[in-house]
Amino acid sequence: METVTSVVEMMRAAGSLRREGRTIALVPTMGALHEGHLSLIREANARADVVVVSVFVNPTQFGPLEDFDTYQRDIERDSRLAQVAGCDIIFAPGVDDMYPAGSVTRVCVSDLTGKLCGAFRPGHFDGVCTVVAKLLNIVRPHLAVFGQKDGQQAVVVERMVRDLDMGVEIIRSKTVREPDGLAMSSRNANLSGVERREAAVLYRSIEHAVSLYRAGERSVERIMSEMRDMIEAGETTNIQYLAAVDAVTLEDVDELREGVMLALAVFVGNTRLIDNVIIGA
Amino acid sequence: METVTSVVEMMRAAGSLRREGRTIALVPTMGALHEGHLSLIREANARADVVVVSVFVNPTQFGPLEDFDTYQRDIERDSRLAQVAGCDIIFAPGVDDMYPAGSVTRVCVSDLTGKLCGAFRPGHFDGVCTVVAKLLNIVRPHLAVFGQKDGQQAVVVERMVRDLDMGVEIIRSKTVREPDGLAMSSRNANLSGVERREAAVLYRSIEHAVSLYRAGERSVERIMSEMRDMIEAGETTNIQYLAAVDAVTLEDVDELREGVMLALAVFVGNTRLIDNVIIGA
Repeated sequence: METVTSVVEMMRAAGSLRREGRTIALVPTMGALHEGHLSLIREANARADVVVVSVFVNPTQFGPLEDFDTYQRDIERDSRLAQVAGCDIIFAPGVDDMYPAGSVTRVCVSDLTGKLCGAFRPGHFDGVCTVVAKLLNIVRPHLAVFGQKDGQQAVVVERMVRDLDMGVEIIRSKTVREPDGLAMSSRNANLSGVERREAAVLYRSIEHAVSLYRAGERSVERIMSEMRDMIEAGETTNIQYLAAVDAVTLEDVDELREGVMLALAVFVGNTRLIDNVIIGA
Repeated sequence: METVTSVVEMMRAAGSLRREGRTIALVPTMGALHEGHLSLIREANARADVVVVSVFVNPTQFGPLEDFDTYQRDIERDSRLAQVAGCDIIFAPGVDDMYPAGSVTRVCVSDLTGKLCGAFRPGHFDGVCTVVAKLLNIVRPHLAVFGQKDGQQAVVVERMVRDLDMGVEIIRSKTVREPDGLAMSSRNANLSGVERREAAVLYRSIEHAVSLYRAGERSVERIMSEMRDMIEAGETTNIQYLAAVDAVTLEDVDELREGVMLALAVFVGNTRLIDNVIIGA
């Protein structure tokens, strides 16, 4: 496995691979790799000749009060884990190389980014889209793999790629969970013992919603009310939002149906966690 | 020469050309080709194996009161002229193909786009950047040729390409002028006889400024004052802006020096014309 830390070198390497006719898959990460990322890398490995894993904690997608400075960084551990999962190139550029002086260009996917997480994290998705656009241009992959856990991110990136004719196939890979259902996340490491136990209610509430749907309930209002009760029963849990939206347009719906994304963001202690499922997917 | 009207087909054609190892140059236009465009096409032809000329009147770069509906469209005439100048592929997509339902992504180059023309045409450069990003992704050129006449546009596109790591060389081609100095523009056709005669003062005032500079004058204030007097002496001319800015940052300067762009926008009758020179270039 190779490690590339310069943007120019990565562009050169990608150009050579393309000319040799090899297919490239990109797995964009902020490091702090866990089993969720590794499943994305395995998926990429099954679909392309060369797997590039980018490791870049992107400052422009963090708000001023968010955890950019304390976000876990350990490139050696990440490299070891990525290699075992089938990564061929780690691309770990520096912040100054990604954003040299005078960087003023932003990619904005309007409408989709003002909802759900975007409503609470102004500018977050502009930062995500801009860095993903850059990574796609630098690595020139045939496909890129994103996790369904960051559901809104996947929708927004898919729209950006379509709108800008970027010619990259976006693969969504399903959420990997702990035995109690908690979605894998780098931020789970921040939970205390009691928080970790209570965090399982996020997915449990979603599973409950899906079972109500399967039993014939369609009212989003009634289903959300039960989810809310379950989550608020915890001592460390505070709901930021519960939403039922069309999985493509992200518009709110009143009635559950196939293709609706049930999504939530919950603070567990000071740690903000998200999860979602798409009904029928 | 070939004409391609579908985005998907153009992407496919560009992919084949790339795989064959041929170099591609893009000349983005809104049609209504004149000698200025033809010089861009010749420049492209001298530098690449295959020249693609896009002809697309981009609705998103026109303001609500601007001339989108009346902008001259004659694809047969444009094709004939482009072919003679060395064009290999005309890419003339439809608006619905470029902007299918649900197109919500914009590329914004902040700072640079609020100045000069951007100050008077809100959203114009977002429209330009978005369509240029799309065209670069669809045509995948090795280089793209822009005219110096649209000076701010060239600066903004260069920054976008750098910031997003688009990996395309941007070539600026020098302004082509009528015998009396008027910069070639599709909008010159809208001028009446007296307007056409008076329009020559735009470049004459710039030439006067440059000759003052060569004679040792450095004060932007004094130089602009003389330019203003010259232009305002016309009966049909109304200045929108006169500016002296750094040719890279577009920041206003007080003193002329090499690398300063003298730029202006003037209404001649109802027709808005622009022109510029970079001192020492």
